[in-house]
Amino acid sequence: MRARDLGLACGALPPGDRNAITDVPGVLVGHCTIADGPVCTGVTAILPHDGNMFQMKPIAAPAVTNGFGKSVGLVQLGELGTLETPILLTNTFAVAPCAGALIRRAIAADPEIGRRTATVNPVVLECNDGYLNDIQALAVTEADALAAIEAATEDFPVGAVGAGTGMSCFGFKGGVGTASRRLRLDGATYHLGVLVLANFGRSGDLRLPDGRRVDPEAGVEEEQGSCIVVIATDIPLECRQLTRVGRRAGAGLAWCGSFWGNGSGDIALAFTTANPVAQEPDGEFQDRRVLAEGRIDRLFQATAEATQEAVLDALAAAETTEGRNGHRRVGLAEILDRG
Amino acid sequence: MRARDLGLACGALPPGDRNAITDVPGVLVGHCTIADGPVCTGVTAILPHDGNMFQMKPIAAPAVTNGFGKSVGLVQLGELGTLETPILLTNTFAVAPCAGALIRRAIAADPEIGRRTATVNPVVLECNDGYLNDIQALAVTEADALAAIEAATEDFPVGAVGAGTGMSCFGFKGGVGTASRRLRLDGATYHLGVLVLANFGRSGDLRLPDGRRVDPEAGVEEEQGSCIVVIATDIPLECRQLTRVGRRAGAGLAWCGSFWGNGSGDIALAFTTANPVAQEPDGEFQDRRVLAEGRIDRLFQATAEATQEAVLDALAAAETTEGRNGHRRVGLAEILDRG
Amino acid sequence: MRARDLGLACGALPPGDRNAITDVPGVLVGHCTIADGPVCTGVTAILPHDGNMFQMKPIAAPAVTNGFGKSVGLVQLGELGTLETPILLTNTFAVAPCAGALIRRAIAADPEIGRRTATVNPVVLECNDGYLNDIQALAVTEADALAAIEAATEDFPVGAVGAGTGMSCFGFKGGVGTASRRLRLDGATYHLGVLVLANFGRSGDLRLPDGRRVDPEAGVEEEQGSCIVVIATDIPLECRQLTRVGRRAGAGLAWCGSFWGNGSGDIALAFTTANPVAQEPDGEFQDRRVLAEGRIDRLFQATAEATQEAVLDALAAAETTEGRNGHRRVGLAEILDRG
Amino acid sequence: MRARDLGLACGALPPGDRNAITDVPGVLVGHCTIADGPVCTGVTAILPHDGNMFQMKPIAAPAVTNGFGKSVGLVQLGELGTLETPILLTNTFAVAPCAGALIRRAIAADPEIGRRTATVNPVVLECNDGYLNDIQALAVTEADALAAIEAATEDFPVGAVGAGTGMSCFGFKGGVGTASRRLRLDGATYHLGVLVLANFGRSGDLRLPDGRRVDPEAGVEEEQGSCIVVIATDIPLECRQLTRVGRRAGAGLAWCGSFWGNGSGDIALAFTTANPVAQEPDGEFQDRRVLAEGRIDRLFQATAEATQEAVLDALAAAETTEGRNGHRRVGLAEILDRG
Repeated sequence: MRARDLGLACGALPPGDRNAITDVPGVLVGHCTIADGPVCTGVTAILPHDGNMFQMKPIAAPAVTNGFGKSVGLVQLGELGTLETPILLTNTFAVAPCAGALIRRAIAADPEIGRRTATVNPVVLECNDGYLNDIQALAVTEADALAAIEAATEDFPVGAVGAGTGMSCFGFKGGVGTASRRLRLDGATYHLGVLVLANFGRSGDLRLPDGRRVDPEAGVEEEQGSCIVVIATDIPLECRQLTRVGRRAGAGLAWCGSFWGNGSGDIALAFTTANPVAQEPDGEFQDRRVLAEGRIDRLFQATAEATQEAVLDALAAAETTEGRNGHRRVGLAEILDRG
Repeated sequence: MRARDLGLACGALPPGDRNAITDVPGVLVGHCTIADGPVCTGVTAILPHDGNMFQMKPIAAPAVTNGFGKSVGLVQLGELGTLETPILLTNTFAVAPCAGALIRRAIAADPEIGRRTATVNPVVLECNDGYLNDIQALAVTEADALAAIEAATEDFPVGAVGAGTGMSCFGFKGGVGTASRRLRLDGATYHLGVLVLANFGRSGDLRLPDGRRVDPEAGVEEEQGSCIVVIATDIPLECRQLTRVGRRAGAGLAWCGSFWGNGSGDIALAFTTANPVAQEPDGEFQDRRVLAEGRIDRLFQATAEATQEAVLDALAAAETTEGRNGHRRVGLAEILDRG
Repeated sequence: MRARDLGLACGALPPGDRNAITDVPGVLVGHCTIADGPVCTGVTAILPHDGNMFQMKPIAAPAVTNGFGKSVGLVQLGELGTLETPILLTNTFAVAPCAGALIRRAIAADPEIGRRTATVNPVVLECNDGYLNDIQALAVTEADALAAIEAATEDFPVGAVGAGTGMSCFGFKGGVGTASRRLRLDGATYHLGVLVLANFGRSGDLRLPDGRRVDPEAGVEEEQGSCIVVIATDIPLECRQLTRVGRRAGAGLAWCGSFWGNGSGDIALAFTTANPVAQEPDGEFQDRRVLAEGRIDRLFQATAEATQEAVLDALAAAETTEGRNGHRRVGLAEILDRG
Repeated sequence: MRARDLGLACGALPPGDRNAITDVPGVLVGHCTIADGPVCTGVTAILPHDGNMFQMKPIAAPAVTNGFGKSVGLVQLGELGTLETPILLTNTFAVAPCAGALIRRAIAADPEIGRRTATVNPVVLECNDGYLNDIQALAVTEADALAAIEAATEDFPVGAVGAGTGMSCFGFKGGVGTASRRLRLDGATYHLGVLVLANFGRSGDLRLPDGRRVDPEAGVEEEQGSCIVVIATDIPLECRQLTRVGRRAGAGLAWCGSFWGNGSGDIALAFTTANPVAQEPDGEFQDRRVLAEGRIDRLFQATAEATQEAVLDALAAAETTEGRNGHRRVGLAEILDRG
């Protein structure tokens, strides 16, 4: 079940073939799902390419809409503008093992890291799944993080899987969702794809694309959620432009009904697969192609539309889940079916 | 005509008595309107209090959603966190005379400025009204800026007045709009008020609170607009909190249908009338009351709701206007009447 | 051996009694040193107070001079302006176990974390000690992190101890250093103290307070270092002011001869012990005392002076060390003795 | 008289032929000096190239070390990363006429500005020369601003000229200074040049390159100064890199003895003459050459060295000046001669 299966398409721009972040050529996504009674959590990995990320670094930039979050790696990403590892998503207390796994994996691939060359900057983003998941169980291991990376493919499930297993969104069952938009530039086809870890929003605030509000009829709790938005594109952009693109994820979340609540760590990370930067470049300069700034509006629109739809995609796909202590989140599809 | 007269109320929180930024005690607003054939422009002044602003500085902070704008004064405001002059809104090319007027006015009131004391930091925000207004005429003078300040009162008109005279919004006639929200904290009543200079949005993108899209049926031009959002409150906040509150203006604009287009300089400035800072303080410390962070969500919601409604207020009040070169913007009320 | 024992006092303001960060009442520092052949590394803990940090959060702010670093916790710290755990310093690859230890320790003290309340934001800062230390050994454990916290006292050693065990600075043996300055405000005595983890600077660039340059005569390598600067004060400051104070750490590093090289993650974190914020406040407001902005220059000067002296303190105290693979760093005292 | 004539060379890298910002090919500098009894002020213009700046925009970025300043144009510069006008330096209260002049000049050259195309973003930076200059006289006119632009050449005077006419620095006569560094990359020669408007620093804090402190023996006043640092290079850099380069101006100021005092608006702006961006580009993409990040350290060093030397250049060249109200600043050369 995807957002469009429930009639929840967003915006005007056409989606890519998969309507997924993996419509951007080379991008892969993998999950490791941990569901065992009160433990419902996991890891989701996004790989900008399937090669050695430390040797061939994708250009990237963070965009923090609300910094109530415990991400790892964003300070260096903002300074240097390059990714050195896959991007891992997980629960708030699993950031440490995920970072550890990325470091060990990088060292295994490049034994000179931290010796002859610089160290490596792991990037891990997180949401708090503590309503459904027994987050204090600290169930995620380094092996789980590596399993998510190993599982990465072009076709991947969405909903209550991987890092999305225990997430909640607008009082419904949340999770992982995705969407993409296809763009024509200089006669060629490009894509911009979004993957969200949707764990934000108060009950009653969800707004569907036609303006309807939908309420899970669950009691309202104070928001302790978050939303992570990863944006990929094959359009060549410089860091400054990626920051501008990433900021528009906030508009997509607002279109879902959010005002970026105090407790919601709403953080975006945008990368391009164009112009990757070599760890050991041949010369002192690199030639890059960059989008003309006057053409960037379509990317802003694509980001906002795909972010909105990716959130609805997570809601559409995530099935009703019961977690720790009898806590329960109903799937949006179930409610819309009833309605 | 106000937004609520057209049935365009936004959100769940109750408005203040005037549903205006001047519901915050002490805040005043004045206009100087310049409408003379192809020249349709002006100045709007917002006064946090009616005293000497250089001597008694309101705590304030900027929040830049999209920095495609030519504001004056935001660098120092971000560093020091205090206002030293009234806030002026005007057209892009009138920033210089408005800044000049604020400097002259401050010197007249405090002859030691730039001599014994530091200089003064004028704050001027702007939008490009060049579609209706002959912006190259450079029609705004220092006298006009002073006239707007002199005219400041609690009850003020909205729509195509002051700085809003020549503005456009979603292909309709734009302008100045306002709204407020009433909040209860520790048993007392407080207000958060918003005033917008609405000059943003592409034709066809406007979304009403019930989800309807409305189209002015005008040809679509590339966005060269902007939106300025001034937020006032009597709730005591520190600078960091004002930045967080100001950022939520972006959610209100998104709720109107915007994705913060490339050409739209979407800039917010939030101030509190609590805890003003003396230019020459008595001691080395100041005692301040500050809102507990855990209570800030209602302010975020109030900001997003009031920003959305203030934009619709500008659209509701602004009447059909013809400007330079036969350019014409239709008022939203006229279109809704027809519909 | 301290900086002043080598005649390396810096600046004009008087130091506190210990000339240490622990001159700020309540602040404690502890080390866990791991020195075993090619493994020479460790953890240093800074405690703003000896109570429950999650329940009573010190006001704090980061200031990033050069973001080439892998710190944890700064995004949330910048947004919310409060610390929730002790501050841990360690090597780059030990950030994950240190963060894990802080999470487990917080949960043990507050079993409602991640259940009824929000999660906790661990703060860990790091430098790359890979020249002397076999950083790939991943020798630091969660138990080591807890041991550093347990060891925290007012009187603590400096030099090649704790996180400083394997650090290098200007081609010499680096490590942990500290200094403080005493300030009079409104008739009372206050302190500003600094602790650095000094691991930056190219051979030959070190400049002593009298202008002399000192060279370790070691071969010059490309900088892969960093410097962490933790600033504590009991002067009441708001977050914006702490950011301004923290930024002046960069001036202190420059006074040592640095231009903040590309590879040097120069990151400061400033906190005040005044006005701590309760996790569960009594009312909706908090009363705070705040320093008048016009008095902040002395704090800027104190920060720059104490940062410069703390770096020299680390150099003065750190003894010649031999680490992995025959790598060796000579202590500055040894070189100055010879000269 | 230049800094090197007084034996005040800084750092290790070789200077360009002029040891001036105009060693960067195409860059021009012009002054308009206003010296008439108590009025001693002026305007200095820096032109990245001698063509139409709106049509061919240099890539640029701001770096604010201390934002206590009233600059114009930095918000848009930070968002879009391009200059659209010459850079003007002047006194704090002359920002408005300078901005006005840049707007009028741009409209005259491109009559479609604000009509068919977007508006133009004037960039004006300032310091407070109110100690020597009767700043309240508001003596600078739009004609003066244009005169500075018209006067722009490769060989230009430094010291108490143009915007530097009334400036003070460490209690001495300050003003305009410049320096450059020559760099070899991929077998070709490049330059990085700096121009400062030096108006900062407390009496007694000046530190010469050999470590000596020099005191003008004038009474110490609270700092109300500032320092503007403009950095030019023909090395191809993207915006993010220009921000990093610009930040190192702060290290150069610190090497002069500054800790970036509260009242000192220390603001840098860095631009490259490589890869200028067309207002109306041919296609949807632009090909750019960009420096490999691993080579950026030499630019950081060049920026810090040239900033330090440019400040000393201003001090060396600026002759003893008497201004309003008997206020007097002695030239550094005079003091060093005496010593």
